[in-house]
Amino acid sequence: MQSTRNRLIRLLANNQDEYISGQLLSEQLNISRSAIWKQMKTLEKAGYQIEGKSKRGYRIISVPDTLNQDTLQWMLETDWLGKKIIHKNTTTSTQSDAHQLVQEDIEHGTVVIADEQTKGKGRMNRTWYSTKEQGVWLSMILKPPILPYQAPQLTLLTATVLADVIHEHTKIRPQIKWPNDILINGKKIAGILTEMQAEQDQIQYVIIGIGINVNQQSDDLPEQIEARATSLRMETNRDWNITQLIRHILLTFEERYETYIDNGFAKIKHKWEGYGYKMGERIQIKTLQDQWQARFVGIAEDGALLTKTDEDEEIQKIYSAEIEWFKEENE
Amino acid sequence: MQSTRNRLIRLLANNQDEYISGQLLSEQLNISRSAIWKQMKTLEKAGYQIEGKSKRGYRIISVPDTLNQDTLQWMLETDWLGKKIIHKNTTTSTQSDAHQLVQEDIEHGTVVIADEQTKGKGRMNRTWYSTKEQGVWLSMILKPPILPYQAPQLTLLTATVLADVIHEHTKIRPQIKWPNDILINGKKIAGILTEMQAEQDQIQYVIIGIGINVNQQSDDLPEQIEARATSLRMETNRDWNITQLIRHILLTFEERYETYIDNGFAKIKHKWEGYGYKMGERIQIKTLQDQWQARFVGIAEDGALLTKTDEDEEIQKIYSAEIEWFKEENE
Repeated sequence: MQSTRNRLIRLLANNQDEYISGQLLSEQLNISRSAIWKQMKTLEKAGYQIEGKSKRGYRIISVPDTLNQDTLQWMLETDWLGKKIIHKNTTTSTQSDAHQLVQEDIEHGTVVIADEQTKGKGRMNRTWYSTKEQGVWLSMILKPPILPYQAPQLTLLTATVLADVIHEHTKIRPQIKWPNDILINGKKIAGILTEMQAEQDQIQYVIIGIGINVNQQSDDLPEQIEARATSLRMETNRDWNITQLIRHILLTFEERYETYIDNGFAKIKHKWEGYGYKMGERIQIKTLQDQWQARFVGIAEDGALLTKTDEDEEIQKIYSAEIEWFKEENE
Repeated sequence: MQSTRNRLIRLLANNQDEYISGQLLSEQLNISRSAIWKQMKTLEKAGYQIEGKSKRGYRIISVPDTLNQDTLQWMLETDWLGKKIIHKNTTTSTQSDAHQLVQEDIEHGTVVIADEQTKGKGRMNRTWYSTKEQGVWLSMILKPPILPYQAPQLTLLTATVLADVIHEHTKIRPQIKWPNDILINGKKIAGILTEMQAEQDQIQYVIIGIGINVNQQSDDLPEQIEARATSLRMETNRDWNITQLIRHILLTFEERYETYIDNGFAKIKHKWEGYGYKMGERIQIKTLQDQWQARFVGIAEDGALLTKTDEDEEIQKIYSAEIEWFKEENE
């Protein structure tokens, strides 16, 4: 059940240009007019700017910059994604929180969002620096009707969503570095971590973690990653509203996910390759055992990297590797 | 650290044909001779038959039929599998216990075993009836250095292990019904449930659940599965020692797993196909959307079923389906 406060915010939000009378709010929410007044004071303390005019009523002038469940869900246009949002001021990692949640029977589309992660998770047990209120740090819990071997497609799908959203916001066209990073000018601006639990032929759930560096300045990044990481702020010289970014990501993701489930991976593959970092070029490929050069010719239906070496014109599929891009080796 | 009791059992077990003097035991275990005597009484209460002769010492004549961690590990010849065994008298399901365990950092090769499961898990959220002390109900936690898309190979590998162990014990040659059941005379005697948690290109862990009907009589099986399930006892008219079966399974699994990790899937595929139920024959294939008939020609590297229809001689790969075998539809 929605809280009174949540319903109040929605009523005001859906009529942002007009005043709503205390009388109407009181009837709709079934609480007294003095209770309405107390709610307004609570909202003001939470950072909402509310205008109250006698004889006209109340309206919201602005919502707080800081994230919370209400402001996130306010005006969220999705049908199912983020209908349940768990917001934390600080957490070890939203991905770990999500893993805890799925131990119970949590609904498809639940989203965990944090202002700060103290142990943000990157791929292969790496760390993801997640400074307070300076980025999008969230995890989505999904129960997709696809087979386990298709799960890597969701990482690629998510990458196209982030690339599109970043492009639409900033007008800068990012690139996707296989398998899971988003780059601007060759520097990492966002990453994706997809984890799943599956049986032989059935996915039980997928948790997709998203990290986007938004309002960090270069001083905010640890020295060892400064040379290869960036933020929206560093690229555009302005701050971005994190709540808006999250709403935009969730809406775009939901739409694309539905198209993918209905129509398959072909469009995603095409979109991904359009953003692909070093597509068509020679790349350095590094696995645990080996490293070599090859031409990057595309991605496969199962998410693998497709390459061709010069000598041998057969296409090779690579499931796990690093594409070298800077000389430094560590993340 | 091993408990004194565990060390005592090992000392006696390693010298089962000879007596060990109370003096020697006292020195080895660093406890008094009266403490040794008390330990022997405790073991006898646990079902061990122990012979004590004055001037000669003690020896174990027989170990209890009921499972426990000590009797399981006693004489277990594996290098790493089951070095940590968690034994429960009763549990909802060993698979769920294993999922709980991996939330902490549990070691590769840990095994959870129960006498009874009140909510034993089958594939696709089905139930597996797991009556008290009448079967092998266990889950193995593994961290295999393979890619997520290869994980179904572990189900197939496990099936060959169970088929071999059942064959060696009973001299009856079972069949493997794709993807995860073992049959004798067309009736289900064992099942496998493989679950994994994985990233895009790295398995975090795999939990392989094994259920074998061992000493049930037909009255012990629920009516609705009686017609299609059987037990070792029902097929051989004798009881089988569950501890011995488990030791044999763990040892065979460990050897085969190591060979697989070193040399790949080819041998497993060959062995599996040798046991394959309806291999080379026409089968009824049923998916959520559809059903049709085709000839079952083998299994693929990624665990898929390979079939050919009459009209169309292209091989089709099937990842998720039921092979119909009885007329009844539900498990």
